[in-house]
Parts: sequence; structure tokens; C-alpha cells
Amino acid sequence: MVPHRVPRWPAWLFCASPGWWRTACTLGASVEQRRWPGSPRGARVTSPLACRGCSSTPSRAPEVTLTQERYRVQRLPFSTVSKEDLAAFECIVPGRVVTDPEELEASNVDWLRTFRGCSKVLLRPRTTEEVSRILRHCHERNLAVNPQGGNTGMVGGSVPVFDEIILSTALMNQVISFQSVSGILVCQAGCILEELNRYLEEQDFIMPLDLGAKGSCHIGGNVATNAGGLRFLRYGSLRGTVLGLEVVLADGTILNCLTSLRKDNTGYDLKQLFIGSEGTLGIITAVSILCPPKPEAVNVALFGCPGFAEVLKTFSTCKGMLGEILSAFEFMDAECMQLVRHHLHLASPVQESPFYVLVETSGSSAGHDADKLSAFLERALGSGLVTEGSVAADQRKAKMLWALRERITEALSRDGYVYKYDISLPVERLYDIVTDLRARLGPSAKHVVGYGHLGDGNLHLNVTAEAFNASLLAALEPYVYEWTAGQQGSVSAEHGLGFKKKDVLGYSKPPAAVQVMQQLKALLDPKGILNPYKTLPTQA
Amino acid sequence: MVPHRVPRWPAWLFCASPGWWRTACTLGASVEQRRWPGSPRGARVTSPLACRGCSSTPSRAPEVTLTQERYRVQRLPFSTVSKEDLAAFECIVPGRVVTDPEELEASNVDWLRTFRGCSKVLLRPRTTEEVSRILRHCHERNLAVNPQGGNTGMVGGSVPVFDEIILSTALMNQVISFQSVSGILVCQAGCILEELNRYLEEQDFIMPLDLGAKGSCHIGGNVATNAGGLRFLRYGSLRGTVLGLEVVLADGTILNCLTSLRKDNTGYDLKQLFIGSEGTLGIITAVSILCPPKPEAVNVALFGCPGFAEVLKTFSTCKGMLGEILSAFEFMDAECMQLVRHHLHLASPVQESPFYVLVETSGSSAGHDADKLSAFLERALGSGLVTEGSVAADQRKAKMLWALRERITEALSRDGYVYKYDISLPVERLYDIVTDLRARLGPSAKHVVGYGHLGDGNLHLNVTAEAFNASLLAALEPYVYEWTAGQQGSVSAEHGLGFKKKDVLGYSKPPAAVQVMQQLKALLDPKGILNPYKTLPTQA
Repeated sequence: MVPHRVPRWPAWLFCASPGWWRTACTLGASVEQRRWPGSPRGARVTSPLACRGCSSTPSRAPEVTLTQERYRVQRLPFSTVSKEDLAAFECIVPGRVVTDPEELEASNVDWLRTFRGCSKVLLRPRTTEEVSRILRHCHERNLAVNPQGGNTGMVGGSVPVFDEIILSTALMNQVISFQSVSGILVCQAGCILEELNRYLEEQDFIMPLDLGAKGSCHIGGNVATNAGGLRFLRYGSLRGTVLGLEVVLADGTILNCLTSLRKDNTGYDLKQLFIGSEGTLGIITAVSILCPPKPEAVNVALFGCPGFAEVLKTFSTCKGMLGEILSAFEFMDAECMQLVRHHLHLASPVQESPFYVLVETSGSSAGHDADKLSAFLERALGSGLVTEGSVAADQRKAKMLWALRERITEALSRDGYVYKYDISLPVERLYDIVTDLRARLGPSAKHVVGYGHLGDGNLHLNVTAEAFNASLLAALEPYVYEWTAGQQGSVSAEHGLGFKKKDVLGYSKPPAAVQVMQQLKALLDPKGILNPYKTLPTQA
Repeated sequence: MVPHRVPRWPAWLFCASPGWWRTACTLGASVEQRRWPGSPRGARVTSPLACRGCSSTPSRAPEVTLTQERYRVQRLPFSTVSKEDLAAFECIVPGRVVTDPEELEASNVDWLRTFRGCSKVLLRPRTTEEVSRILRHCHERNLAVNPQGGNTGMVGGSVPVFDEIILSTALMNQVISFQSVSGILVCQAGCILEELNRYLEEQDFIMPLDLGAKGSCHIGGNVATNAGGLRFLRYGSLRGTVLGLEVVLADGTILNCLTSLRKDNTGYDLKQLFIGSEGTLGIITAVSILCPPKPEAVNVALFGCPGFAEVLKTFSTCKGMLGEILSAFEFMDAECMQLVRHHLHLASPVQESPFYVLVETSGSSAGHDADKLSAFLERALGSGLVTEGSVAADQRKAKMLWALRERITEALSRDGYVYKYDISLPVERLYDIVTDLRARLGPSAKHVVGYGHLGDGNLHLNVTAEAFNASLLAALEPYVYEWTAGQQGSVSAEHGLGFKKKDVLGYSKPPAAVQVMQQLKALLDPKGILNPYKTLPTQA
């Protein structure tokens, strides 16, 4: 099969059979904004889902059941906030102590509207020193604290379970420095990811991570949850790109490991303890991070693949032929595409296929990148690895292709009740669990779909039903976790454990490891006041 | 200035002024091998310096003073090895308990011949289970243990200080698995870096790190010391590329965190505790690591620069124009080149310049890479950032160019007594300390030179004198450490702290951080039996 293509980048298109661009993708013009009932006066809350120019119909959200009732959690014996505590906080952060229940509502509920706490006070420090004074007070008084960034987490880690004091990093939003030779950015924890990226782009750099939630999420929260996202394949883990952190420990001690050095082998790398520990070991107040130069050229292409074996071979071919410019390799199955078409009226430029692959390249030479992509396409089409494809000729079309992948979550949520799993598996076995579950669940599930960051071995496995169904849940759990454990996979690839998944840690980590984690928690936060009920399993 | 160049890669050369390739570099044919006095029967010890086909004249090394005498260290109250202990070890690792003093000598002395312990027993386990049983016994008996890989460290971290039991990973040298789709290698800790790289190259992959010591160093030691090296600029830190570790804790507990997953956010990332902790928190027994595809094309070029400001600008230009294919950016000053010429008779193909820059590219398309390099050269020469350059036309010439940079250490050691510092600084200030020290030391130093991994902000600062001189040392220390601390630099960029630098940790880390490190040590190794006298400062 020879690709038909118009001679030269950036306006070329190709296909295995002509007439493939059947309908234009339909994309709204504005970023989705939702107003929670009771969100801060007049404030509009941007949904983390809203990204890359997508839109959806806003709807009034129903009341969310209190987490403590829904999950029958026992409150730990922390103190409750007294008038004297409030007065002390008012001394530390004057005018930034929020106690109005309406204002607190948006911070008590997670954005997926699954978890709800009943905190009575939210504090908005501006400086590390203020965070330190707040924690010193809370530690002395045995008051529990829930650190909160953009509140865009997927596992209920960013909202209180009971009446924990919410410590928001929203006002800690200053860039401290940027070194343009080395590309090292130092900033406060509350800087919004998208704003940092915009700041860097003006200086021809970018952030090494990108997420759907970028318009709301804070860099401190990204680091605290070890966020993965869309640039992971290219720029790697935050464990490599974060160079330094400033953290306030449970007792108020400021741990300044905010170096701006690519190499530093002096002692144990303490910052790693706080990356991904979801605010349970300390509160991140500032971040030093290595930022890559802004790529000169970004290309996006969507392909149809006849089977999962071909998806894997396409990935290997991509890695070999696109090499250092490959920046994303995402996949989705036919059911995902059907849901996106049905619920969001987005049309694929590629004919119906069992699988779809989205490839992004980012490089320093548009011509070279186009040549590489062209050579790859010829090989992939010629060998039957892909049956058809569409390369975005401009930024608008690139966004349209990305929307097909990024808006799957939204399409799923419109399909009914969604059982969501975010797992890592050896890439060769990544899709087996989807096939397996379809057979296991039969007609009791509406849809069983698989998509995700194939390049990172990260599957988003989702099952939909008309409504919540306990017997379906029983068929899914612990089956999915056991299946994953059987493949030495991870039961939480990038979303973390938070409140929702803390009790499944044991499927991915042996008892000896869980024990060391508990010892670390006891060492750094002996009273357990930092983000309680999260990350580690409930102890008997 | 327009570069003169022969039309097309791979045989092109260029220069700002003709006639630049004045003398051929002289390189020996064989890898240097040294025989320590008293090294294992008939065994030849390969010097970690020996690399990329370099040679030097072997010489009989003088006796090394015992560390405990030279540095007046107090032995901690560990037990001493008894006959019963030896019998127990013989049960655990039959036939692999070494007590012959001659055989032990090579493992008691570090390769720089600066430190010497007096261990009476060396154990050679083959399996994790054996390591676990050994440590369980040592823990019960309060016997100190010195884990040892290839014994190629720079700071005395890999040899005993007193009579610690040496636990060698030399026989733990099996590859466990390699996944060719994802590029994930799992192997035992004692695999030699170069052998792993060779194994991977057969499958079109490479290790993400490369060191001068690759022919001897073990991957477990690389991870335990968080080795940096020559591919750091491109593939980043081991903190990002190491995906999993298996570690045996001080009490013999096996901590299996040997996942082969790019993403895993289940709980605290315990493996990070052991990366770079120099065997003081646990003994690494197996490693899972993400390996990049083998680049199709590797190019090496050497440039002369008129000043350090131009070196920095060349770096920025390189990052912009070579982008994703830039894999090394090394620099050296004129005195380095003079020493290499004088002591090793290596000649530079570039005329004498105040600074030299070595640039390496690794990419997936030889043609594209050559085009990028060519465009960069035109820009750099035309704007006066570099005055002259040489691009290696084949692998042999590439090795010759690399030898000029890699053999500086060797040239320095032939110049007299060497005071060595391995520091990280903000890249803009990287060379200031060299200029500063030249003025400060005046004629009391023979040479003050600066070279290193500029792309990583890592300076190797070396001062030579005819012989050791206490007043020169007093002029250097703590001055160099204070100067570095004043720039928020690191007093050990990639070499670690080991025995030699444990007491300067405080220059790069605040007291609160040192305290947390000491708490971690106490938590994971309460009896302090793992690699004692290393990494953390001596406590009063």
C-alpha cells in the first residue's frame, strides 16, 4: 500500500485509501467553565478537563455525599479548630483566613465530585515562613491539615475527609528566578502550570510536563502527586526534572533543598521523599525544575491500526525512525472513538479501525521532522502496520486530533456511571485486560474501553454502566487489581493513591515496602497531621 | 568568518583558518591494565581511567597508608569477625569466603590509592537470598559491612576504613530480562556497565549512562553513587531512568521494588532512598533501568573559544540549533590542553585557544544530524563564538577527540600532587572560581585548571603542586567549599561524599536536611553497620 500524499510539509495529508477526511472535527471555541454550587463569590471554576480549546455543556452538579458517610471513615483524634486557633491564624495570615461555608464549599469537594469534606477553615499563606508558622501551630495543637493546590486530583487526595484545615497554595504564585542558559526555573508551589508554560514560552522554553488540568493545577501539586501527563515520554519523570524543593515539615521546620543544580550528590536526596507523597510527609512551598527549550516544530498525526499487535509494532517503528523527536505515543480503541463520536459529536478523520494511535513529534527542525515523519509513514503504511492516517497541517487541526484523545474521559462520563482504573502494565500485555474484562463482564457492562499513554505503558481502563451497580463493582474489584498484580503492574500509574486507592497499595508493593513507608510517615509526621486518611493503607 | 568545509558528511572538516590539523593525536592501542601489588593471584586490574582505547605507562604503585592512621579515625564498637562467623559465612556462600590477605589487598585499597582498610574477609554472594542471609547474620552479630562493586569510586566510599566485611557484588552479574519494545533492562547489581552496554547494543539499545570507569564499574555501584557521567546531558539522571530496585536492608529484609514500569505512583518511591546513598541505607542487589535506542549517528566536534562568555553562548546556540540531538557539551581550559599535550603527547587538532569545547550529537538520522551540525558551525564561526573547530570524520577520530577531554585526569596525576574538587555551580559562574583561585594561590600552585560537563553545570576544579603542601591545602579548604556554598553550589556534583567528603556535606545542605538524613540512617540501619564512616558527617 503506497501512501497518497501532497508533496510537502506542512500542508500534506496522506491515506491508504482516498476520501478519508469525511467530516470535519467539531470543536467549540471557548474553554469550559463550570460554576460549582456555592463556589467562591462569583468565581468561575475551570474544569481540569477543559483544555486545548474543548467545550461541553455545563450542567448543575448534584450534591456530593460526605466522604465520611459514603465510605464510613472513622475520624482520627485530632483537635478541632477553636476561636483561639482562628485568632492565631489571623495573626499569621491576616485577612486570608476563610471561614465562610459558601466560600469553603469549592475546596471541600473534589472536581470529579466524588469526595466531600467538611473543613471549617481555609488558609491562604503567601510565603514559606507563613506556612511554617501555620504548621508549627497545627503541630502543637494537633490539628490536621489538608494541603491543596489546584484541586484537580483524580483520587480524592486534595480535599479534606473530615474537618482538616485546608492550606491552599493559591497565593504562593510567584516566579522566583529563571536562568536562560541552563533553563532552570525556580518558583513558588502555587504557580499554575499553564501560566508557567506561558512565561517560559516567551523565553523559548517550555515546562517539561503538560496535563489536561494545566489551566488549574499548581506546580506544587504536580510535584506532590508526581504527575505524569503528555510530555512524559519525551522529557521523563519529575523525579529527573525536579532539581530542588523547599518543603515545610509537619512541625514547621523549613527544609530548604531548593538547589538549581543539575548534579548534586551531597547526601541523601531528600526532595525525592516529597515527590509523589501527596502532601503526607511535608508541604512543598517552592520548586526548582529543569525546563527544555521550546521545540521549533510540533507535528501531530492520527493513525488507524488493524490490531493491538500492530499498535505495538508501530510503537517500535516510531521509536526507531522518529527517535529523539517522538514526544507522545497515545492509543485508543474503537469503542473510545465511538463514544467520542456519539456523545461529543467529534468525528475522526481516520476510517473506523480496531485501534487508533496518536503520534506527536517535537523537534528543532521542521524540515527534518517532516522528513522523518514521512519516512515513517511510508514504512508503516507499506508494511500494513497502519491502514490509514491523518497528519495535522496546522495547529488548529493538531488540537482537533488531540481532542479525540483528550476528551475520552468526558465522553465516558456522559455514557453513564464510570468505573475508572489507571494502571501500568508491561506494554506487551497492555490491552489483554480489556479483552479479558469484556468477556468476563458480558452485557452487565455498557462499555469496556482501553486507551492511554502506550509509550509509558500506562492504560486507562474504563467500564461504563447505566448506573452504579454493586455486582458489577464486585466483578471488577479486586479482579482488576489482582490481574494487574499478576503482571507485576502498578494499580496506580500516574493518579496516585489519595483517599480512593490507599487500600490497594498492597497489590503493587510488598509488605516490607509498605512497612518502610509507614515508618517514614511516622518519622516525618509523628502526629500524622499532614493529609490524614490518604496514601497509606488504613492501619488495623 | 566562513567555515571552509569539504562538501558532505561524514568526511567533512572545517576551520576558520586553514592548516589546523597540525599533528595527529597519539593514542595507544590497548586498554591500560595495572597490577596492584598483592592483587588477586595473577589478576590484572583494569584502571577505571582506561577508556576509549587510551593507554599510559604502568608503574609500580607505592604502599598506601591505612585510612585509620592517615585520617586518625576512631573505630566504632562493632564486633570483630570470629571463627564462628567465618563458618556461618561458609555455610551461606560456600567456597566464596575470601580470607587470604593477598587476595584481599585489591579490595582494601581504592583505585586512586588514597584510602586503605584492613578487612580480613570478603564475601562473594551470587543471589539476593545469600546477601539477605549474610546481612541477617551481620546485623545479629553487630558486624560492619562494606558493600563493594567495581571499586572505582572517587571519594573512598567503596573500601573499608577498618575491618568491615567486604561484600562484593562481582558474582551477581546476570541479566534477568530485557524487553525490546519498552527498552527496559533488569539485571543483577554486579553487572559491569560496559558489558551491559555491549549486550544492549546487540539489540539496538544502549545504557543511559556512560563513564570512563565503564570497563570495571558495576551497575549497582553506579546506582548507589548516582553516577553522572557522559550521557547525563542527554538521558538525564539515574533518578529518572532507574525504574526499580531490589535492595537488602541492614537486618536482611529484602525490599523488592524491582518494577519494570515507567509509571508507578503507588506510595512513596522507596528506591530513591537507595540511589546515591552509597550503600549506607541498604545494599542494592538488582536494578531495573530504562534504556534508550542506540542512536543511528554519533558525531563529535572540538572547538576553540576565545573566552568563557563565548563558551556559554556556544552552549546556548548549541541547545537551540542542535536541540534534541545534543548529547554532550564538555569544556576544558587552555592549561588542561597544555597538560594533556605535555604529559601524554596528545595534540589538539584545534589551534591554541583560551577554551575548548567538545560537542557530541546522537541522533536517528545521519544526514539530518550533519545538516544541523553544519548549520550550527556556520553560525558559531560566523558570529565569532568559536574561532576554529574539528569534526571527527570517523569513529577513530571521535575517540581521539574524546581522549583529549577524558585523559585530563591522567595528565593531571602526572603533573604532581593533585587537589581535586568536583563541584556544581550556576553555569554562568562556572569558571569564576578558577580565575579567582589562580589569583589567590599565585606561584604556590603549579597549575589551576577547570574542565568538565558544562552542559550539566559540573566543574572539575584541579590544582597541582610538586608535592603535597599543607599550606596550599589550607589556602584551598575551606575556601573552595565556602566559595561554592556562596553560589548555592554543590561541593560534590557527581562523585558523592564517601569517606573523603562526608564532613563537607554542611556546605551544600542546611542543618535541618542533615538532621533528616541522620534520622533516615537511624531508621533504616539502627546499628549503623552498613558502610560506616561514610556519607554522613562524623557526629560529635
